[in-house]
Amino acid sequence: MRSRVEDSPDQCAVEFAMEILGGRWKLAILKQLVTGTHRFGELRRALPGVTQRMLTRQLRELEEDGLVSRTVYREVPPRVEYALTDVGHSLDAITEELDKWGHWYRERVRDAAASGSRPPV
Amino acid sequence: MRSRVEDSPDQCAVEFAMEILGGRWKLAILKQLVTGTHRFGELRRALPGVTQRMLTRQLRELEEDGLVSRTVYREVPPRVEYALTDVGHSLDAITEELDKWGHWYRERVRDAAASGSRPPV
Repeated sequence: MRSRVEDSPDQCAVEFAMEILGGRWKLAILKQLVTGTHRFGELRRALPGVTQRMLTRQLRELEEDGLVSRTVYREVPPRVEYALTDVGHSLDAITEELDKWGHWYRERVRDAAASGSRPPV
Repeated sequence: MRSRVEDSPDQCAVEFAMEILGGRWKLAILKQLVTGTHRFGELRRALPGVTQRMLTRQLRELEEDGLVSRTVYREVPPRVEYALTDVGHSLDAITEELDKWGHWYRERVRDAAASGSRPPV
């Protein structure tokens, strides 16, 4: 488990959660793994904007935080599979909701761009 | 609305959502505003780890993305209040779930630290 920047009893729990899950990629990686195990290359293709180095780093942190497991099969060539742990699966409902919200918000942005206006707030 | 790094139809919707909401502070700020309007100083006290500059920047981005409104009352001294827009409130269920998850995960981390072991995965 990674060391925390701080651990104050008063720290907002959402802030704490985002220390673990924040950034652009982690929840997207977890979302990809909801349906089952994936190899590194599959994750990379599913998230075209991520670099190899960034994906490696994000997966390592998710592993250290107990959200993702990494299984190495000593075949030739070696096969490495990533999967959600039970703790990782505890975020399934949240990633599902974020997926719905992302679709909805993206449509909103596109509609606003198409009409050449800022979206109504 | 802020310009997006990319806007590919294939982009994972969770990744897109985290482009808007990612980082340590934004969802924590939205959580604080679920119950009502807050002044800048109140938000800062609620999130002790945030700097003034960082909070200002996060609030401005949330405003540009249509999630937060900023109302200036021309009193002496001027009063500025932040509130969720309807779009901002569309994330209430997600921030609530993240809050619960953050509490739960933090307990897990503390229990693991108290027993001196890595938590079971």
